[in-house]
Amino acid sequence: MNNLPSDLIETVQNALQEDIGSGDITAQLIPTENWAKAQIISREPAIICGIPWVDEVFRQLDEQVTLSWQVQEGEHVQADQILLYLTGPARPLLTGERTALNFLQLLSGTATQTNHYVQKLKGTSTQLLDTRKTLPGLRRAQKYAVHCGGGSNHRLGLYDAFLIKENHIMAAGSLSQAVTQARLLAPHLPVEVEVETLTQITEALAVQVDSLLLDNFTLPQLRQAVELVQKRAKLEASGGVNLNTVRTIAETGVDFISIGAITKHVQAIDLSMRILPD
Amino acid sequence: MNNLPSDLIETVQNALQEDIGSGDITAQLIPTENWAKAQIISREPAIICGIPWVDEVFRQLDEQVTLSWQVQEGEHVQADQILLYLTGPARPLLTGERTALNFLQLLSGTATQTNHYVQKLKGTSTQLLDTRKTLPGLRRAQKYAVHCGGGSNHRLGLYDAFLIKENHIMAAGSLSQAVTQARLLAPHLPVEVEVETLTQITEALAVQVDSLLLDNFTLPQLRQAVELVQKRAKLEASGGVNLNTVRTIAETGVDFISIGAITKHVQAIDLSMRILPD
Amino acid sequence: MNNLPSDLIETVQNALQEDIGSGDITAQLIPTENWAKAQIISREPAIICGIPWVDEVFRQLDEQVTLSWQVQEGEHVQADQILLYLTGPARPLLTGERTALNFLQLLSGTATQTNHYVQKLKGTSTQLLDTRKTLPGLRRAQKYAVHCGGGSNHRLGLYDAFLIKENHIMAAGSLSQAVTQARLLAPHLPVEVEVETLTQITEALAVQVDSLLLDNFTLPQLRQAVELVQKRAKLEASGGVNLNTVRTIAETGVDFISIGAITKHVQAIDLSMRILPD
Amino acid sequence: MNNLPSDLIETVQNALQEDIGSGDITAQLIPTENWAKAQIISREPAIICGIPWVDEVFRQLDEQVTLSWQVQEGEHVQADQILLYLTGPARPLLTGERTALNFLQLLSGTATQTNHYVQKLKGTSTQLLDTRKTLPGLRRAQKYAVHCGGGSNHRLGLYDAFLIKENHIMAAGSLSQAVTQARLLAPHLPVEVEVETLTQITEALAVQVDSLLLDNFTLPQLRQAVELVQKRAKLEASGGVNLNTVRTIAETGVDFISIGAITKHVQAIDLSMRILPD
Amino acid sequence: MNNLPSDLIETVQNALQEDIGSGDITAQLIPTENWAKAQIISREPAIICGIPWVDEVFRQLDEQVTLSWQVQEGEHVQADQILLYLTGPARPLLTGERTALNFLQLLSGTATQTNHYVQKLKGTSTQLLDTRKTLPGLRRAQKYAVHCGGGSNHRLGLYDAFLIKENHIMAAGSLSQAVTQARLLAPHLPVEVEVETLTQITEALAVQVDSLLLDNFTLPQLRQAVELVQKRAKLEASGGVNLNTVRTIAETGVDFISIGAITKHVQAIDLSMRILPD
Amino acid sequence: MNNLPSDLIETVQNALQEDIGSGDITAQLIPTENWAKAQIISREPAIICGIPWVDEVFRQLDEQVTLSWQVQEGEHVQADQILLYLTGPARPLLTGERTALNFLQLLSGTATQTNHYVQKLKGTSTQLLDTRKTLPGLRRAQKYAVHCGGGSNHRLGLYDAFLIKENHIMAAGSLSQAVTQARLLAPHLPVEVEVETLTQITEALAVQVDSLLLDNFTLPQLRQAVELVQKRAKLEASGGVNLNTVRTIAETGVDFISIGAITKHVQAIDLSMRILPD
Repeated sequence: MNNLPSDLIETVQNALQEDIGSGDITAQLIPTENWAKAQIISREPAIICGIPWVDEVFRQLDEQVTLSWQVQEGEHVQADQILLYLTGPARPLLTGERTALNFLQLLSGTATQTNHYVQKLKGTSTQLLDTRKTLPGLRRAQKYAVHCGGGSNHRLGLYDAFLIKENHIMAAGSLSQAVTQARLLAPHLPVEVEVETLTQITEALAVQVDSLLLDNFTLPQLRQAVELVQKRAKLEASGGVNLNTVRTIAETGVDFISIGAITKHVQAIDLSMRILPD
Repeated sequence: MNNLPSDLIETVQNALQEDIGSGDITAQLIPTENWAKAQIISREPAIICGIPWVDEVFRQLDEQVTLSWQVQEGEHVQADQILLYLTGPARPLLTGERTALNFLQLLSGTATQTNHYVQKLKGTSTQLLDTRKTLPGLRRAQKYAVHCGGGSNHRLGLYDAFLIKENHIMAAGSLSQAVTQARLLAPHLPVEVEVETLTQITEALAVQVDSLLLDNFTLPQLRQAVELVQKRAKLEASGGVNLNTVRTIAETGVDFISIGAITKHVQAIDLSMRILPD
Repeated sequence: MNNLPSDLIETVQNALQEDIGSGDITAQLIPTENWAKAQIISREPAIICGIPWVDEVFRQLDEQVTLSWQVQEGEHVQADQILLYLTGPARPLLTGERTALNFLQLLSGTATQTNHYVQKLKGTSTQLLDTRKTLPGLRRAQKYAVHCGGGSNHRLGLYDAFLIKENHIMAAGSLSQAVTQARLLAPHLPVEVEVETLTQITEALAVQVDSLLLDNFTLPQLRQAVELVQKRAKLEASGGVNLNTVRTIAETGVDFISIGAITKHVQAIDLSMRILPD
Repeated sequence: MNNLPSDLIETVQNALQEDIGSGDITAQLIPTENWAKAQIISREPAIICGIPWVDEVFRQLDEQVTLSWQVQEGEHVQADQILLYLTGPARPLLTGERTALNFLQLLSGTATQTNHYVQKLKGTSTQLLDTRKTLPGLRRAQKYAVHCGGGSNHRLGLYDAFLIKENHIMAAGSLSQAVTQARLLAPHLPVEVEVETLTQITEALAVQVDSLLLDNFTLPQLRQAVELVQKRAKLEASGGVNLNTVRTIAETGVDFISIGAITKHVQAIDLSMRILPD
Repeated sequence: MNNLPSDLIETVQNALQEDIGSGDITAQLIPTENWAKAQIISREPAIICGIPWVDEVFRQLDEQVTLSWQVQEGEHVQADQILLYLTGPARPLLTGERTALNFLQLLSGTATQTNHYVQKLKGTSTQLLDTRKTLPGLRRAQKYAVHCGGGSNHRLGLYDAFLIKENHIMAAGSLSQAVTQARLLAPHLPVEVEVETLTQITEALAVQVDSLLLDNFTLPQLRQAVELVQKRAKLEASGGVNLNTVRTIAETGVDFISIGAITKHVQAIDLSMRILPD
Repeated sequence: MNNLPSDLIETVQNALQEDIGSGDITAQLIPTENWAKAQIISREPAIICGIPWVDEVFRQLDEQVTLSWQVQEGEHVQADQILLYLTGPARPLLTGERTALNFLQLLSGTATQTNHYVQKLKGTSTQLLDTRKTLPGLRRAQKYAVHCGGGSNHRLGLYDAFLIKENHIMAAGSLSQAVTQARLLAPHLPVEVEVETLTQITEALAVQVDSLLLDNFTLPQLRQAVELVQKRAKLEASGGVNLNTVRTIAETGVDFISIGAITKHVQAIDLSMRILPD
């Protein structure tokens, strides 16, 4: 559990509870002693992500199920590639199938989408960041999947970095007062400021912020910002990012591009589990 | 809470905990006594769904926040339409913004996608069903959203209906033995059987199943099935369903079309919250 | 865990926590290294139910305890029959005794009571159903026990079947409007209507309900209903059911008889655990 | 919550969750704005117990429901007496009905059974005690109900009193060594010893135990014990206690009679809720 | 888990969750396959307490970690003594280090502080008691640690013993009425009364309380109380107790001295974990 | 709840549950209708911290209790100063007293200890940091208290900042490789490296770490480090810090001094609650 999210076990428990409820009734048609072998395949190319969640599903259901993975976490697979062989009592194999696939298709989907963007950035020094636009209750799992896909994680929540926006600036009196106050409140935490003009960038650099969020800047504005900042702070571009624009934005020289789409939208990978004949 | 999912409160708690953790540090830049007014707008046309989740977010954060909804649950809105006015202490308004939007964009997204399909079915008697292909931990909320969008709910989990597939049939000896056993196990629960041939349909009708799942049947096969069954059981088509094919499939006369895509994929609605000037 | 209730682990945890609290102090009088063998016997005839709960109690307490069951789940046992041998460290054997017995005596009690009714119905085609009159927090376990005893499960809760009563009918305008609305809301779910007159039965049949609840009907009224319905819907009788009346009610030809008494009342089976001499 | 069990809120949450699940679907037939008035009556004489649980059910469902109790906790009511008027939105009234009644019928049942025994003891100085033979997860609620019915609570669990039995004595070497060890381990906690002979009683008195458990003693043996002990320790009789024998046992002069039957068996009180016409 | 607190597993889960959150990111610098050996030493003399909590930390993180304890629970160790060898995958060793040490340093600290007092009491018959002045959420663990250090446990909470103070006496009308009422409410539970004068002691003895709390009595007053009571009730002194005064107070002949300082203050033991070279 | 820890409600629930259990039995001696007024005073000078926890204790117990605070969170108070007046039903006032005080004495203790160090640093630009050496389950609350006392928070757990130590460096191959890898893994997160020599500092500066941990450096070594680094990274000193040494260490020019003692040791503030006469 060490470098996995600490809520993995609980997330799997919730998922099993909402699916199984008072018991898998159809599974009762199968004698307890029946044993089966199954495989999971991917029906489309993907970056596979979510192996520990699948392991945990079957560990919670029945420790007699053994899993033999044919791929590694973060690996790129082809259509119709076999991902996993499962052997064990037939009942828990069938009972756990949907919950296991639901995790694997979601997290592989997020990793795969992320990777599409990461591929576009190859050769640039710009890194892809996720956002707090995530599925409720699944943020840690999704951020893990972004990482699997080659992306990087922005702040986890409201607690581990400052992101100072217009309303905070107004309340604090000025941008520089907001930053100064933040440093006093939590000197150890990164301070990022959302800026709207070049003047604000200069003001922010004067108080040594860690990074600047440039939301909906045009390409020329981004280039001006990069020129002005001269690596004295990290630059994060957001807004209007898609697979067609991401590379051009990166080539302005910004350090980060953050994209809500990779976690708020989900394009689940098409997976299927098949019981194998004896 | 009565006809809402019983896990609504807990789902909101989890979402707030993963976002707030040890506290919203940036919010500390704003004096406790500051009061603010904000609005949430939809930047694209949508079916709005998730109002009780947004209400619960702010109820848990600070009961002083008051919400004045401009739309109703399930209502169709236009781009740039105002959904909600919020008034209250500025801190909880900003702290709750992202979690509230995350619920609203997800559930409205699911309701909207569902509704696209439902529109295609207008004038037919075929109903749209969801599946168990859902986001882990969010099934009840998603099924509620499908309902908001005009769709209907298939079984909730493994516990509230039989869905007898090939492996169950083999284990039971025959299709009719499987159904008979199921009726004995839980006479009150609906029994659906996944069939692959017309012969199996005849066998299933003989033991009076409630419904038949026709997975990946061609259009002629679906029409044959409808003809053969003569309303003696409900027919559910699945596989190969998309916005282009759904109407044609419905016109074969099947009772239900079930679609995994509306809950396993997510196209979040683009929403934004704006703090209003005094 | 697959066809067992998904809350089994949690139910056992709660039971152990309320019994053990800050620790079993009397068990401290026994040296940690002491090993013991014990047996559980039933002091009266019973249908045994609850084996997975007993297993889970000792799994949570100390995995060194091994259990050797002499009976199977659902088996009929005689007075003074040995159910189980336990071997392991003496402390957890004594600590878990009461919690294990509390589950076993309750669930066997429910299974046994259920079975008394089921015996009376032998040779008829009427099935016994449970109700939602259960012990708070123990519904899934009790419904499992009803099943063990040969009974069948009615709906699990308010979410998996419609049961339309007088107040719903009045609010919807008429019986047929209520049923039509229900079909639209959740076409996949069974619809049962509680009726009070033969006219209402006719109205319900016209809109093709799945089943009819006949509460407190006299025997002649039940026979009339069976005659009128002609198998077009399932008939469930309730009210005034006891071990003396159940067979006569069944012989009217109703499909189901539902009985609150088997889950709201509890006649725990008299069990005891005895530490065996070396 | 102060002198109520600390798990009351959680127990009600669990009960509502298992009943409501993904939502009360039948309640959807009733317009949200409908308002209703209802009453709960007892169909048989009873000691009423469980009012705070009923209050909590409706508080969790909808704070708009108001409850007007016509009886007090612990009050003796007649058949057909009105216990409670409820007013509020019709949906939560119907949704909460069963869960509320399930608590009230269980706890009133336990209080009433307890009270039957307590009535038999009137005029004696013997007090009725409960045991650890309770329904899993409901011990605190049941012990509260025993108290409502005029009984007294024995130890709550394994943590708040010593109950030294044969196995503990054997492990410790002798009865007096077991008691001495217990006093050292937890000097503040009551020490009770289960004895089987008069010699053991003498041994126990020599080390000043607080109370003695006399399990399955005959009436003459009980009298001898009372005579021997001379109030130097409390005497608790158990085994073979029923409504016919309890008084005679009390008249031997024992201080306590403990009865598993009042909590392991349940005879739920017959209650019903009725929606009132406008 | 039998004579350990029933909340041990949950307490460890909470501690790991607050430390690990979305994952131990620094541990990712270490290859998954790296194996390591480590030791935990105490940098100061101490009574070691908390072994089951450390075991549970690593059991939850990774069952491949094996622990070889060099000391026993409750053992007195010297500065720089090795307490434990750990072997296993390097990642969980590093991830679990701080949480494991946080439990061990806290509980050993409490056991050690307790033991300092217990040493002072050697040769007297007075026993040291803890209080309800504990760290929120850690009471059961701390009371266990007091026991490890040779102290005894006072009541666990508000539920397992009466402690009648001035306000209760005033509400009940008189001291003797309060005690009488308490006996009726829960005859099995110990009754302690806080008294302020010798007259009150006499009144309390007349109604046979189990113990008397003498708060902030002077030494002569304590001696008078001992003289007056003549072992007819246990006497507990509190207030003004420290390592200099505890023996003198004990020598007045009181049975118990209770000290809030051992659980409300914490002097954590200085421990460190060191990774060993291959 | 917005800038308070998201686990505040749950922490209070746990604390009340462990204290109240099956109910506050002594409170039953007080008639339900009795009303009381009370005050909490501090018996020693302190920085008060924990007001929201006290509010939450009484909100959970009984919403009729009203609290009138005479001081503000973070305020310095004198011995015998009145902190709070409480009015409400007498039972919950007495039931909640200990739990409320346990939070307030702990968090005020931590704030006060922190403040002693902060006072010593006045006039320097060095800031005080806490560590991960905290009480299990109470980290968020303690870090909040450090903040109340004028200190700053170091990383919250293993998830929100890198702290690269010797073992990570060895596993990664070199210090600079470790830092480079970390930047790739999570570009947004602060990277701190624990260094042992001036050479390592140079190596770390070359890869632009955010901060350097100088553990157990002598004063001359600290001065050399400050000189060498020239503000290119933040410097954190730890080890051998106490109230006598902290200022001298600060005067070397380091940016931060981190102290485990303020959270792993606890010196609870001496508080008391007194019921006021009418």
